[in-house]
Amino acid sequence: VKRARIVTLLTDFGLSDPYVGILKGVVLGIAPEARIVDLTHDVPPQDVLTGALLLERSARWFPEGTIHLAVVDPGVGSKRRAIAIACRDRTFVGPDNGLLGFAAARHGVVRVVELANPAFRLREVSSTFHGRDVFAPAAAHLAAGVPIERLGPRLRRFERPRWPFPRVAARRTTGRVVLVDRFGNLVTNVEREHLPRGKIAVSIGPFRATRILSTYEDVARGELLAIFGSFGLLEIAARDGSAAKALGLGIGAKVVVEAVAR
Amino acid sequence: VKRARIVTLLTDFGLSDPYVGILKGVVLGIAPEARIVDLTHDVPPQDVLTGALLLERSARWFPEGTIHLAVVDPGVGSKRRAIAIACRDRTFVGPDNGLLGFAAARHGVVRVVELANPAFRLREVSSTFHGRDVFAPAAAHLAAGVPIERLGPRLRRFERPRWPFPRVAARRTTGRVVLVDRFGNLVTNVEREHLPRGKIAVSIGPFRATRILSTYEDVARGELLAIFGSFGLLEIAARDGSAAKALGLGIGAKVVVEAVAR
Amino acid sequence: VKRARIVTLLTDFGLSDPYVGILKGVVLGIAPEARIVDLTHDVPPQDVLTGALLLERSARWFPEGTIHLAVVDPGVGSKRRAIAIACRDRTFVGPDNGLLGFAAARHGVVRVVELANPAFRLREVSSTFHGRDVFAPAAAHLAAGVPIERLGPRLRRFERPRWPFPRVAARRTTGRVVLVDRFGNLVTNVEREHLPRGKIAVSIGPFRATRILSTYEDVARGELLAIFGSFGLLEIAARDGSAAKALGLGIGAKVVVEAVAR
Repeated sequence: VKRARIVTLLTDFGLSDPYVGILKGVVLGIAPEARIVDLTHDVPPQDVLTGALLLERSARWFPEGTIHLAVVDPGVGSKRRAIAIACRDRTFVGPDNGLLGFAAARHGVVRVVELANPAFRLREVSSTFHGRDVFAPAAAHLAAGVPIERLGPRLRRFERPRWPFPRVAARRTTGRVVLVDRFGNLVTNVEREHLPRGKIAVSIGPFRATRILSTYEDVARGELLAIFGSFGLLEIAARDGSAAKALGLGIGAKVVVEAVAR
Repeated sequence: VKRARIVTLLTDFGLSDPYVGILKGVVLGIAPEARIVDLTHDVPPQDVLTGALLLERSARWFPEGTIHLAVVDPGVGSKRRAIAIACRDRTFVGPDNGLLGFAAARHGVVRVVELANPAFRLREVSSTFHGRDVFAPAAAHLAAGVPIERLGPRLRRFERPRWPFPRVAARRTTGRVVLVDRFGNLVTNVEREHLPRGKIAVSIGPFRATRILSTYEDVARGELLAIFGSFGLLEIAARDGSAAKALGLGIGAKVVVEAVAR
Repeated sequence: VKRARIVTLLTDFGLSDPYVGILKGVVLGIAPEARIVDLTHDVPPQDVLTGALLLERSARWFPEGTIHLAVVDPGVGSKRRAIAIACRDRTFVGPDNGLLGFAAARHGVVRVVELANPAFRLREVSSTFHGRDVFAPAAAHLAAGVPIERLGPRLRRFERPRWPFPRVAARRTTGRVVLVDRFGNLVTNVEREHLPRGKIAVSIGPFRATRILSTYEDVARGELLAIFGSFGLLEIAARDGSAAKALGLGIGAKVVVEAVAR
């Protein structure tokens, strides 16, 4: 038996309006066996970069063959292209505005096509909701087994925003907060490989940590700590509390990791 | 192979409480193959009219055979009837308080029944949660293939609230905002067919548009525009921003479309 | 045909971050046929007791064989154990911090195991997200048919917080509000069996009811009433309004039910 294909959704539509539901209706009308999974619909409205980061950090947890549909699309109706990117083990569908760029690059791009074939769009395409009229049909046709080549002509390029790497010097790495989650964890752009060697100190706002700990329980309740979180990124967290609230910091806040004398 | 039936859910339950999850448990207990899709659970509490509008605008995007379960039910436990409405290509289930009226009328009513047969309810029916005890079981039995006739006696009527049409005069159409979405778009009740002929101007609060544009990119970032949005209704939007916030307007705000001298 | 197993999710992750979606990706990677249903993800962050109450009140509505995955896990990364509890007709998976205690006890515990077998975890287990690395894989393997015995060694005990029973005296029951739902209903811990015999009065804040009514329609719009709600618990509600707002009360508020002279 062929496995039903998983279609994940990442948008900035929120869940209060019926937009996400409508998009699912379109997918299931074309690919009745598709398994639809919401990644998140709370990307800040039209914040392509945050959407791109979340997609990159999330896609790896889905099995081979997954189709990742993503729509954060301030340029809907303009000349920005609609694309699908087949990678080694999964496919991304969405606007060519950088939203797919990080994730696609991470998974090994095999082929990029423009979603130009009207046979795989809805009959009428609005100028305001390509999620429904262009992207959902494309993802659904892929889930139903249509080869990506049929969706449109091959492209040689797609938008790749620059990953917001931290500034790495010999003894000092300067990063910033790129996400704040529901628990108030301040998620930075610093990965393990960006750390200076040897003994280090982490500074963010008024907080200074002299170690990166490995569990929340290494500090007392309410206390702050630096830890590599579930995204594989350095986080500033408060045990059983919100670091964002405790420090009054949010996206963009600077974090410095320095080598210190032993 | 028979396709698994889709059951869509539209409620005012929100997602913070487990009510929606419980309702899905009941559906899957009766119809294990049903495909459940959330349309929205953020209808303002007990706002039947908004629920009715959203259901009407959303149902059309789902494939033939879909069962649309809707629960916005301030009269739960009273004498308001519980009904199912079979239309030409889909079925609606919910309280007979107007919630289903717009959508059912749009899709060609074939048969209306009262959900009176206790065999297709839960054994115990509470007086506060018919979504779980009456509507979900009915929708699930329909999804599992029970003919609508078995759910209860035929009714000749069902509640049909008046669609909030705009006031249309020869050279002037007066509508109002009926929805505000997550992006701050002010969605009005004005459809294309309500527009005066010829050159027109759109006025809402302090904003006046001399054209209805076709993409957001026709204006600069942050600027307001009038556009027919994805619901097929005239919207006032702000490119990459919130028209609701920019204008300080919301549901009920008056919009006027006038013919202007060329 | 074997029914696809239902996996329900109850967490404090919220829906804004991709954590819930990632968890589903892990489940579907292991058990592609699992039917995943969200119970709620809005348990207040790290509020194990509220999570335990909601799980206990919700699980019964799901069919036999359901696997209930629950993650409210302030002690992640510490020595608290990860467990699965097989009950007569369903299985619970989560941290051994009391979260599963009420629900498991309600459904007749058959076997408890510690999720210690690395074959049924992800290869790398983080210290911050056992929902993804430990609990989701365990639930998925159970859904895919792995016998619970294989997940790890049998335990003789699991954490069972004390259910917050009201104080019941001969003529006076003193309870408290344990949940406030989206409609502003004040849900108390008082069940029918806790009521004094005969004629009673219910007092909460400034409100006094001399009867427990059976439908919202027994009072005028906006008026307060006492009613046994859909959780099987005494609720203070406002018809077409919010009792929480009307009374300015929330979780922890005291409710007294007294026998009154006839």
